[in-house]
Amino acid sequence: MRVLGIDPGLTRCGVGVVEGDVGRPLRLVDVNVIRTSAGVPVATRLVTIEAGIAEWLEEYRPDAVAVERVFARSDVSTVMGTAQASGLALVAAAKRGLPVALHTPSEVKAAVSGNGRADKTQVGLMVARILRLPAPPSPADAADAVALAITHIWRGGAQSRLAAAAEAAQSSRAGDARVAAARKAGRR
Amino acid sequence: MRVLGIDPGLTRCGVGVVEGDVGRPLRLVDVNVIRTSAGVPVATRLVTIEAGIAEWLEEYRPDAVAVERVFARSDVSTVMGTAQASGLALVAAAKRGLPVALHTPSEVKAAVSGNGRADKTQVGLMVARILRLPAPPSPADAADAVALAITHIWRGGAQSRLAAAAEAAQSSRAGDARVAAARKAGRR
Repeated sequence: MRVLGIDPGLTRCGVGVVEGDVGRPLRLVDVNVIRTSAGVPVATRLVTIEAGIAEWLEEYRPDAVAVERVFARSDVSTVMGTAQASGLALVAAAKRGLPVALHTPSEVKAAVSGNGRADKTQVGLMVARILRLPAPPSPADAADAVALAITHIWRGGAQSRLAAAAEAAQSSRAGDARVAAARKAGRR
Repeated sequence: MRVLGIDPGLTRCGVGVVEGDVGRPLRLVDVNVIRTSAGVPVATRLVTIEAGIAEWLEEYRPDAVAVERVFARSDVSTVMGTAQASGLALVAAAKRGLPVALHTPSEVKAAVSGNGRADKTQVGLMVARILRLPAPPSPADAADAVALAITHIWRGGAQSRLAAAAEAAQSSRAGDARVAAARKAGRR
């Protein structure tokens, strides 16, 4: 199983691909950060992030995508950009028919370190140990993306099969909703 | 000038197209709401919203897009979905090379009603009066999208020409950043 982890962000969006299965050694395929400059209009920055995510999906053809769940209680100055980037990640995966899951920061910390309140250094060190890397991926956004992918593989199995079944049952309803919206109120 | 206004939201995303120029009567071309159900996974809902916005851009070929600026201090339970939908709107416009502007709710209220603290009823009534409609567009998200388009036309002129110049100067820098991210750290 190959998973793309995405730690969404407007300035630094972490992307990491991990391969493996529950109970077997995992392998880091690639990790990086998509960067955009604060001097550029938000719309342009988001286009860059969307293009970067598309490139990773096309190059590495993951079986699933794991995205960090963003909370409104996060740092107010960056949470809007983070939410916008996460939306692009979810759409990029769903449009390609890939299963996509959201994991909270504490779920990720607990999965890789056994401690839901681990700090960034601990997460980086555990990621390096799990993947037998000489050093933690850097910056922290890169390590977080890899940790998300690891979490997704380790939490996988029954959970993702259930989610896929639920998604399949619900997407037909979503299709209906879209058609209804398009047809509504004498648009043509 | 034809402007698509987008009031982003996950449950109801308002879309409204207005045509006209500063100092001339404006005309409502079309207005609607893209709806998604809370029972559907977020990724699927966002795909529906992206497809809906794309359809409006293709059908009405606006000259510019105006999106409501979302603030983190908004209602916490919905702000994440709103931010995600707004990101999709910005990307949809920017990818097509359309100028895209963000207007705050108080800028919109001030533009259409003269009062930055006007309530939803007042905004709806003023939208109906400005566009000579028999009644305000409904629901409020639809009226807000139309109000955004009106605001954009009325605030247009010098402001949007300045923004376009700034965007052009900056998008070459954004292009460089994307290439740098893709080439970085021995991806291939």
